[in-house]
Amino acid sequence: MAAPGQNLAVVVHRAGDLRLENRPIPEPGPNEVLLRMHSVGICGSDVHYWQHGRIGDFVVKDPMVLGHEASGTVVKVGSGVTHLKPGDRVAIEPGVPRETDEFCKTGRYNLSPTIFFCATPPDDGNLCRYYKHSASYCYKLPDNVTFEEGALIEPLSVGIHACKRAGVTLGSKVFVCGAGPIGLVNVIVAKMMGAASVVVTDLSASRLQKAKEVGADFTIQVKNESPQEVASKVESLLGCMPEITVECTGVQACIQAGIYATRSGGTLVLVGLGPEMVTVPIVNAAVREVDIRGIFRYCNTWPVAIALLASKRINVKPLVTHRFPLEKALEAFEATKRGEGVKVMLKCDPTDHNP
Amino acid sequence: MAAPGQNLAVVVHRAGDLRLENRPIPEPGPNEVLLRMHSVGICGSDVHYWQHGRIGDFVVKDPMVLGHEASGTVVKVGSGVTHLKPGDRVAIEPGVPRETDEFCKTGRYNLSPTIFFCATPPDDGNLCRYYKHSASYCYKLPDNVTFEEGALIEPLSVGIHACKRAGVTLGSKVFVCGAGPIGLVNVIVAKMMGAASVVVTDLSASRLQKAKEVGADFTIQVKNESPQEVASKVESLLGCMPEITVECTGVQACIQAGIYATRSGGTLVLVGLGPEMVTVPIVNAAVREVDIRGIFRYCNTWPVAIALLASKRINVKPLVTHRFPLEKALEAFEATKRGEGVKVMLKCDPTDHNP
Amino acid sequence: MAAPGQNLAVVVHRAGDLRLENRPIPEPGPNEVLLRMHSVGICGSDVHYWQHGRIGDFVVKDPMVLGHEASGTVVKVGSGVTHLKPGDRVAIEPGVPRETDEFCKTGRYNLSPTIFFCATPPDDGNLCRYYKHSASYCYKLPDNVTFEEGALIEPLSVGIHACKRAGVTLGSKVFVCGAGPIGLVNVIVAKMMGAASVVVTDLSASRLQKAKEVGADFTIQVKNESPQEVASKVESLLGCMPEITVECTGVQACIQAGIYATRSGGTLVLVGLGPEMVTVPIVNAAVREVDIRGIFRYCNTWPVAIALLASKRINVKPLVTHRFPLEKALEAFEATKRGEGVKVMLKCDPTDHNP
Amino acid sequence: MAAPGQNLAVVVHRAGDLRLENRPIPEPGPNEVLLRMHSVGICGSDVHYWQHGRIGDFVVKDPMVLGHEASGTVVKVGSGVTHLKPGDRVAIEPGVPRETDEFCKTGRYNLSPTIFFCATPPDDGNLCRYYKHSASYCYKLPDNVTFEEGALIEPLSVGIHACKRAGVTLGSKVFVCGAGPIGLVNVIVAKMMGAASVVVTDLSASRLQKAKEVGADFTIQVKNESPQEVASKVESLLGCMPEITVECTGVQACIQAGIYATRSGGTLVLVGLGPEMVTVPIVNAAVREVDIRGIFRYCNTWPVAIALLASKRINVKPLVTHRFPLEKALEAFEATKRGEGVKVMLKCDPTDHNP
Repeated sequence: MAAPGQNLAVVVHRAGDLRLENRPIPEPGPNEVLLRMHSVGICGSDVHYWQHGRIGDFVVKDPMVLGHEASGTVVKVGSGVTHLKPGDRVAIEPGVPRETDEFCKTGRYNLSPTIFFCATPPDDGNLCRYYKHSASYCYKLPDNVTFEEGALIEPLSVGIHACKRAGVTLGSKVFVCGAGPIGLVNVIVAKMMGAASVVVTDLSASRLQKAKEVGADFTIQVKNESPQEVASKVESLLGCMPEITVECTGVQACIQAGIYATRSGGTLVLVGLGPEMVTVPIVNAAVREVDIRGIFRYCNTWPVAIALLASKRINVKPLVTHRFPLEKALEAFEATKRGEGVKVMLKCDPTDHNP
Repeated sequence: MAAPGQNLAVVVHRAGDLRLENRPIPEPGPNEVLLRMHSVGICGSDVHYWQHGRIGDFVVKDPMVLGHEASGTVVKVGSGVTHLKPGDRVAIEPGVPRETDEFCKTGRYNLSPTIFFCATPPDDGNLCRYYKHSASYCYKLPDNVTFEEGALIEPLSVGIHACKRAGVTLGSKVFVCGAGPIGLVNVIVAKMMGAASVVVTDLSASRLQKAKEVGADFTIQVKNESPQEVASKVESLLGCMPEITVECTGVQACIQAGIYATRSGGTLVLVGLGPEMVTVPIVNAAVREVDIRGIFRYCNTWPVAIALLASKRINVKPLVTHRFPLEKALEAFEATKRGEGVKVMLKCDPTDHNP
Repeated sequence: MAAPGQNLAVVVHRAGDLRLENRPIPEPGPNEVLLRMHSVGICGSDVHYWQHGRIGDFVVKDPMVLGHEASGTVVKVGSGVTHLKPGDRVAIEPGVPRETDEFCKTGRYNLSPTIFFCATPPDDGNLCRYYKHSASYCYKLPDNVTFEEGALIEPLSVGIHACKRAGVTLGSKVFVCGAGPIGLVNVIVAKMMGAASVVVTDLSASRLQKAKEVGADFTIQVKNESPQEVASKVESLLGCMPEITVECTGVQACIQAGIYATRSGGTLVLVGLGPEMVTVPIVNAAVREVDIRGIFRYCNTWPVAIALLASKRINVKPLVTHRFPLEKALEAFEATKRGEGVKVMLKCDPTDHNP
Repeated sequence: MAAPGQNLAVVVHRAGDLRLENRPIPEPGPNEVLLRMHSVGICGSDVHYWQHGRIGDFVVKDPMVLGHEASGTVVKVGSGVTHLKPGDRVAIEPGVPRETDEFCKTGRYNLSPTIFFCATPPDDGNLCRYYKHSASYCYKLPDNVTFEEGALIEPLSVGIHACKRAGVTLGSKVFVCGAGPIGLVNVIVAKMMGAASVVVTDLSASRLQKAKEVGADFTIQVKNESPQEVASKVESLLGCMPEITVECTGVQACIQAGIYATRSGGTLVLVGLGPEMVTVPIVNAAVREVDIRGIFRYCNTWPVAIALLASKRINVKPLVTHRFPLEKALEAFEATKRGEGVKVMLKCDPTDHNP
């Protein structure tokens, strides 16, 4: 048990300065719940804030708690909360719009400029013992869904949002560019949405092996092919040009390949982020009506993911390869930085280290 | 080999009068192909034309060849045909618009009033040795897809079109009303499109058992429950109201149950056809914005189905329970009429009775 | 000026019992604003609650303030309000979801079962001097939009939501069934969305004259035609079947006519509400893929309407035919009950009776 | 009357070599109609083929008849034509897919790689006395629509397709970049689809004046502003960022401005074509979910345009500023090259030079 009033938290102070320290246990507001955190995955962005103190325009100016792939148990509910009660196990959607603006009202709350987002400066994350969150963005987990599955909904959501924006549907041929964690998640989701075949490219043979394991039909290990050559190989393997390309690297040559590869009338979704300015064959995309669509995080994905996990239609458990108790968070971050395993999970509840 | 010029065909002359007779081998026009038929499934509508000589306004006035679930091999191509050549194995989409009208131009060619449709009076079907068809509506089968799989694309297409019109997507909860062949196909397709859970209702326990086998998560054997009671059971099993209901019976009480059962903002798709006029709780549907959408056959489903069959994402082979050579077509129709098995397949090529 | 603490309000106590009485001035919560009401239109539902004490399942059990077509001026803002300040002139969207549930998150907040709605029991309306409302559902009016235009956004919203759900677009042919206020609003909105031609039916020649005035291209005065005959006249006048029918009467024969009239692949939107159970030619709709869609109030319409009013693209001012000061509200209700004029506006600000 | 067998045509032989010469009168095939041409507009691409002998990969290798903005009268119909008869006045959609491929079946026939297109090498256009065309792509003109209006449907179609792909709808704020003919058409169509306000940018004050005349709410004469500065001015004039940008110049800086200017969740449509490779702020577009969509010509626009012209909802007549008889085609091309007026119309029927 945590000592009364004690709330151990993983806090980044500035680039290179990561600390375990005690913070007060917060008090939930009327529409909030207080959670005893259970499982929190470490994301590449957490490591990046630790290493670099910033991501783009988001700069760590004040100490910030990390963590946004998370699940826990409700211990206290605000006066206005009706759909949750103490003891409920929940997964946490880390982005919460602060105002009900037009983006929220039209179902695209992820685009709201007012959004709070866990572990994006200056907003604290939930890699700690106790954390309060908007009750509306905590989703009750069924008994047959574990806390770790609940925490993994966050990375899964990126794939769900990307594949929905891409319009993956029954029979789609899909080209996923990049076999890192986000590429893999997109392979899984695309297949689950009915894609007939998925081809994945990457520089690394071992990553492509992983892609095969999660369902990729074809893989291409790229070396120094031109974007047009990559596109040609994709078409050749699929037997036709893919209607959909999901670009997960952000690399200019890959975005170019994505345009050349996509079938006329299809969609290229940009998930990976690279340099702000890139040079692209815009006329090729335009005159073939290949839509270019980005994604910003996700919206409306938690209920979808919980329904799939509850019905055992998707198995994300193998993604968790390492576990550390919260007290050993610095070791966990070092392991993550070294690129060990796939997903490192921190166990925040000292009384329950189960998945 | 068929004798030169001989084209054995299964022809309905009038209600109760089904004959095997020889017809001339047709000559393909410029945009047509001549096919040596291989496998043709018997559909309930074929039996119905034999037994009753009509379906609704479609009346058998002149002798008509039956059959529209079919595949075969190209033996001759018209002068304008570029994408097929003799020897190509193809699946046949039975509906071909005769004019390029606005329905065709906007991608909904199934609604064209000019449509030709196999074995719908007065249009001949393809339960015969040799048959000519629009080349654009013959789809080349990959080597790893059998002729029988090719023939089964037709019933599968009803499910694909219904689930697309329903908007089944990742995480959908779906209520399928009726566990006959069309209900089963909808269960299969809904799951393949990412539905999280599917509940099926039927009067028959054995049909529901079949539904379980093809992927239904829950089944309800209905007796004399009111529509509201059925809706309530559906919600109870799913843990929430389904966003989508696929009604496959055409029975008034089932349509009513479909409206009551569907979540606000969801969709009820009408696949089953019953009496022309039905009484429905229209205000309940309207004020909850439950859309009511019918389907008429299908469009744009063959490429989707072939992609899925080629990638081994779907297994329809177990649906074929009986096979008869074309010469024994009358026996095959008798067996179908008795309700034996699931799908009876007629083998039209005397030199190849393989699946 | 209102006496301090005095808040004159129009309150229905039970069927037939409408009173002008003083209520306390409410205090806005953190996310609310207090408004000095300016113009409030009388809606048919207000009169209905007064006359019958109920609409369907909504029963006046406790005294309830009427009014939901309203605009006013911000006099006080809650601590959490950032986008409004005292002095801002606003239009009020009367429906406010109490919880951020899945309906809200997906952009269909009108379907939220938790919704608060002005003057729907037990929720008080805003036909009074002072009223508090969720700040997020108060929309700032530009200087060139009057208070009365602001109040008229509410009825206009029904047309916007219906035409959006109908998919009215450039070149649409539209059949509007019924030329009452809601029918007229749909004519106006359909034309503004690019409809090529609109035909309107009604029993009343004078109502049809009004429809012509607001933009209907054709009108049909119906007598005792069968639904099929009405459909046939609609097609004949338009030169083709309409892709879209907007049914504004709720009458069974009209819904039937709407199905028969709509082009294959089109949409029938149900706006009018009549008897709970209606008998419809469901097979006709289903096999022609005519979608049947209802509407429940509206969502995301205020910003649209304000943009149109601000750019002078729409003129709703002629709709206001009568004005009464709030003190004479009972007279105003009597006039409305007698069916005088089109829209009766109550002027709630004793210092400013301008439009 | 033309001499029997004589078919005067405007033929480009190579860059700089434009001739008036006689060609044989063609014979319509079974699904074609022979037309006596009436009015044909000169398009910038016609002038470009004359001046440069090519556009991108499309090279004039053999003599080619110019012209694709056209209307005429049916003089002969093929054996399979049912919806047209001699004497019918028609507008001609210049693109006709040669095969019914997947693009055609799904309603996007403009993307078919098999497409025939008037006056795109090697396909002959219709700037001549007699021309045969697919009957399905000839649209009957109502009596109250002139031949010239029929010919103007072609440029109008670019705006219709662009605004549909952009998703312009009721209340949209739209930024049109470029006030040339295509920009103007987009202003007209956007307003007709319900846009609340449209802002147009151009280098030329006189072009912006024209934009005002056809309905632009605001104009910005750009000089050497940065893309971000242009975006900022657009937002400032509209009072908010536009949901939609229609880019009609193809210039890199304008595409960049289009991305910066468009509201999060909005759409940038690329209509203008410039250099193949352009550098764009792709991360800015991606993380704000601004979709980038091109257009290739148009599809399904003729029926829409005819409906609008027939109902007098749109006035394109003032666009025609010059008329020449076919015999003086070379003068007409010289005038067009000099940039005189807006639209030069050639009158191909020696017996009728009316609009």
